[in-house]
Amino acid sequence: MGFWKSLFSSSESSAPSQLTHSDEYFAEANAEAPNSSTGSRIFFSTSREIDLYELEELCDAVGWSRRPIRKVRKAIQHSFIVVSMWEQQSNRRRLIGFSRATSDHAFNATIWDVVVHPDYQGKGLGKALMQQLIKKLRSEDISNVTLFADPQVVDFYRNLGFMPDPEGIKGMFWYPD
Amino acid sequence: MGFWKSLFSSSESSAPSQLTHSDEYFAEANAEAPNSSTGSRIFFSTSREIDLYELEELCDAVGWSRRPIRKVRKAIQHSFIVVSMWEQQSNRRRLIGFSRATSDHAFNATIWDVVVHPDYQGKGLGKALMQQLIKKLRSEDISNVTLFADPQVVDFYRNLGFMPDPEGIKGMFWYPD
Repeated sequence: MGFWKSLFSSSESSAPSQLTHSDEYFAEANAEAPNSSTGSRIFFSTSREIDLYELEELCDAVGWSRRPIRKVRKAIQHSFIVVSMWEQQSNRRRLIGFSRATSDHAFNATIWDVVVHPDYQGKGLGKALMQQLIKKLRSEDISNVTLFADPQVVDFYRNLGFMPDPEGIKGMFWYPD
Repeated sequence: MGFWKSLFSSSESSAPSQLTHSDEYFAEANAEAPNSSTGSRIFFSTSREIDLYELEELCDAVGWSRRPIRKVRKAIQHSFIVVSMWEQQSNRRRLIGFSRATSDHAFNATIWDVVVHPDYQGKGLGKALMQQLIKKLRSEDISNVTLFADPQVVDFYRNLGFMPDPEGIKGMFWYPD
């Protein structure tokens, strides 16, 4: 749980394992837990021990095509970093966001499968999730953080500091002939 | 040496550990070893045991910025697949090409560091190298093969079946603010 430790160390927050909407980070991100008035909290985790059926539900909610659980498990295992986002309300926690990155552990990382539950969109939580992932990649000394953005989210990533086609570099995909 | 085995198995070639320019694959790729009249042969390897100083020389030859050997070693270790290209002449072999891919081992791969020595460019060898890498990725059941192409090599990759910005998907790079 190294990530927890660095993210919620006593120097950063008085809460040892939770990040409330009043923490500095959330003030920056302008993100708010939808039910913050009822005492819910948003937190992040880099644990790979995610209920894959809960993740499938999250991906269903945004309309993604279903993928074999077996392959999703393998992809998570072999990702460099996984950051999930949760809403906690008393003893119940709910998976509300997910992201992961592949990497050579040295120079490059590529971000995949960024998803935020529709009920939690438009509140800065996607931005907060991405900032956690980037922070983690930077702490691992990765200097080249890349992704492939669908047209409707290009501006979202641009606002986070991502540049489309810098110096004319083109993202390309291979399809069988 | 699983790749050797699959690439040069007896059903595919009578040569157990070399691929000559007369092999079917090279006929397809229309590639030719520059010194084929003097008995040189081109072969591929997925071994990660590459002399990193020889790799640095190769990258110098195409004008790439030097990178710390320590980080290059780490990147190779943590790549999903590495394919190098060699010219063999009697007992001497020379590294003439290199490529690697990161992956989640399930869905996506991203190709990095594709290089062919200038003396060996324009002969179909870059294409042959890429075809080996793609073949290997496909044999691992990776369906989404991606890369970021500099403007001057977009057409090279297009000819190999890579599509720039398919369905408006944009390659994006993150830079610190």
